[in-house]
Amino acid sequence: MITVPGFRFEGVACGIKKSKKKDLALIFSERPATAAALFTTNRFKAAPVLIGIKRMRRGVIQAVVVASGNANACTGARGMRDAEAACREAGRRLGIDPNLVFPSSTGVIGVPLPMENVREGIRKAVEGLSPAHFNQAAEAILTTDRFLKVVSTSFRIRGKKATLAGMTKGSGMIAPRMATMLAYLLTDAAVEPSCLQTLFKRNSDATFNRITVDGDMSTNDTAVLLANGFAGNAVIESGSREAATFERALYDVTKDLAIKLVEDGEGATKVAEIRVQGARSRAAAEKVAWTVANSVLVKTAFYGEDPNFGRILAAIGYSGVSVRPEKVSVSFDSVMVARGGVGIRANEHEAARVLRRPNFTVRINLRQGKESATVWTSDLGLDYVRISAAYRRYDIA
Amino acid sequence: MITVPGFRFEGVACGIKKSKKKDLALIFSERPATAAALFTTNRFKAAPVLIGIKRMRRGVIQAVVVASGNANACTGARGMRDAEAACREAGRRLGIDPNLVFPSSTGVIGVPLPMENVREGIRKAVEGLSPAHFNQAAEAILTTDRFLKVVSTSFRIRGKKATLAGMTKGSGMIAPRMATMLAYLLTDAAVEPSCLQTLFKRNSDATFNRITVDGDMSTNDTAVLLANGFAGNAVIESGSREAATFERALYDVTKDLAIKLVEDGEGATKVAEIRVQGARSRAAAEKVAWTVANSVLVKTAFYGEDPNFGRILAAIGYSGVSVRPEKVSVSFDSVMVARGGVGIRANEHEAARVLRRPNFTVRINLRQGKESATVWTSDLGLDYVRISAAYRRYDIA
Repeated sequence: MITVPGFRFEGVACGIKKSKKKDLALIFSERPATAAALFTTNRFKAAPVLIGIKRMRRGVIQAVVVASGNANACTGARGMRDAEAACREAGRRLGIDPNLVFPSSTGVIGVPLPMENVREGIRKAVEGLSPAHFNQAAEAILTTDRFLKVVSTSFRIRGKKATLAGMTKGSGMIAPRMATMLAYLLTDAAVEPSCLQTLFKRNSDATFNRITVDGDMSTNDTAVLLANGFAGNAVIESGSREAATFERALYDVTKDLAIKLVEDGEGATKVAEIRVQGARSRAAAEKVAWTVANSVLVKTAFYGEDPNFGRILAAIGYSGVSVRPEKVSVSFDSVMVARGGVGIRANEHEAARVLRRPNFTVRINLRQGKESATVWTSDLGLDYVRISAAYRRYDIA
Repeated sequence: MITVPGFRFEGVACGIKKSKKKDLALIFSERPATAAALFTTNRFKAAPVLIGIKRMRRGVIQAVVVASGNANACTGARGMRDAEAACREAGRRLGIDPNLVFPSSTGVIGVPLPMENVREGIRKAVEGLSPAHFNQAAEAILTTDRFLKVVSTSFRIRGKKATLAGMTKGSGMIAPRMATMLAYLLTDAAVEPSCLQTLFKRNSDATFNRITVDGDMSTNDTAVLLANGFAGNAVIESGSREAATFERALYDVTKDLAIKLVEDGEGATKVAEIRVQGARSRAAAEKVAWTVANSVLVKTAFYGEDPNFGRILAAIGYSGVSVRPEKVSVSFDSVMVARGGVGIRANEHEAARVLRRPNFTVRINLRQGKESATVWTSDLGLDYVRISAAYRRYDIA
């Protein structure tokens, strides 16, 4: 069971989802917490994202309310009023300033929040708040996800034990350029605000921002990290050894959560690590990695367990990077399938065995320089289309 | 029946495809023709593309040999030798200079051409050449295509009747940035070489380069236009009224062929025209149009006949263009589904009816300027995944 000192949680069903599954999550800190957050760069930002950005000007958060099944995006002025009203309701019930309440939403775009249900959900969630209900909250933020995505770790800061735990929801609309999902990270460590934001940003760039399921970026994506100081440690400052310890914990938790997001990509059956080496620049390595990771033909070949290196070479070739075909090699795990831009047919059988694994690495060596980049992607299968084509009829919505 | 004076055609089966379907096409002009061509910009160019580029230095072509079922891509030095050998064989059998033979291939990447079969196919195709076998050739260039894609038109150049006919093959790996398929266009008009190339390039930018099926660009894409002068017209020169007449015919034929390519996109059930207006620049309009056209979530919603304008707004929002959400409207045909960035729920039922049509237009107005752009895209359905996941096991290969 995951607990984080000074935090209480609840997840309830209040009828936002037709399915009667849990659809409202509440996270509450016993005292206002230092907060860091990252938001979608989509120009269409959902109402709760716009309010979340406003809340972050103070950088202090005491409660998070998440409605799932409805994104409250593209809902105009009414969407803003609804999100503010949800914060006021939570503030009133919790006895705290509504400006300390951080709102989130995920689900169908363009439909107003059913506010009666939301109010009822907040009431029930406040009543049920418990330090032991981490998983209930984590369940309530899910939409088409197939499994809970929670991770927890503990570490020591000058002798004081501290905990960091996180929950995410993902599935579709997972793509680079922050923040590509909902993620809530909670720690009882005390961390200086700008240090917290810097570490969170850097870690997310190495984890949450390196995954793709369908290359689509949502209007709602939000990642929040709350540090409430219950561990009683001396406040962690930038550049200290303690900051390094905290950053390692943060990396472990966010990387685990990020890979779980890919594993649970809509309809996904595989997680592929795309590792590009030998690029002239970091940007070139990234461009090649993302182009391969988002190629629909590459992703369907993974689904078909077909070591179709030709599609990978083709994607490298149209990435916009000036690769030299005759230098490029591609391997699946340790099995090389193309060298000097030419397929190695003798290895195909063995390569097909690699692709039957649920996790594998595609290594691409451009042999033009020393820079590299890694991203994680899922395959694209029949269930992705089934779920995505029928999303609004799906029982989550 | 399509005929073009001075051209003969044949399509035969020679065992490149396991399915025993036609897999070798031959196009022959009674005399060397002025040629224009456009090739994939993929850095990995198939052997026949590299040879085609070389042939175009002279700009005169008398025969085209197309092998389908095998791309002869990523096949290294052997691939180059094989493609040259196919040209030599065709030249020998036709009694013409092999440098006048233009090679093409399409199909699986990374597998050497089965040269015995290719030689046998060339022999049979030369024997069967006929002015009446246009469709046989058009059939032999197909892979997973579901239907023949042929178009023909006639026009008058100073009293002389001329014909322009084209055949294409497409299906998967259809994406912008030329040339996104195989296309062979044949005319008996006489056209000055640089005029021919200029018109062909401009037209392709408005037609073949404005379509997408999966956003993947092939290593083999080639479009060729041969003008053999059998119409007996005075040679068409740049800037003349005759050039305008010819360009209109070219536009009609290539646009028709381009839309047929989308219609026959792998697993496609819909053709959507994405029309972006009110952009600040042409580049911004294009960026928004392509982002929407390639969004996997938008395309699966089309497949599900779900007027999910939220996904369209989300794609506009991550296109990288600084749109103002509160100004953006979206319509399906004449039914507006979002205005000022907010959904119009009352119109949803009617919008769903539009999406049940096989063809519809998505109109996006950014209200920031006067520039516009149009592209065509297919939906993305279960059959796309079925075909793409099992491509190499598919009976075409």
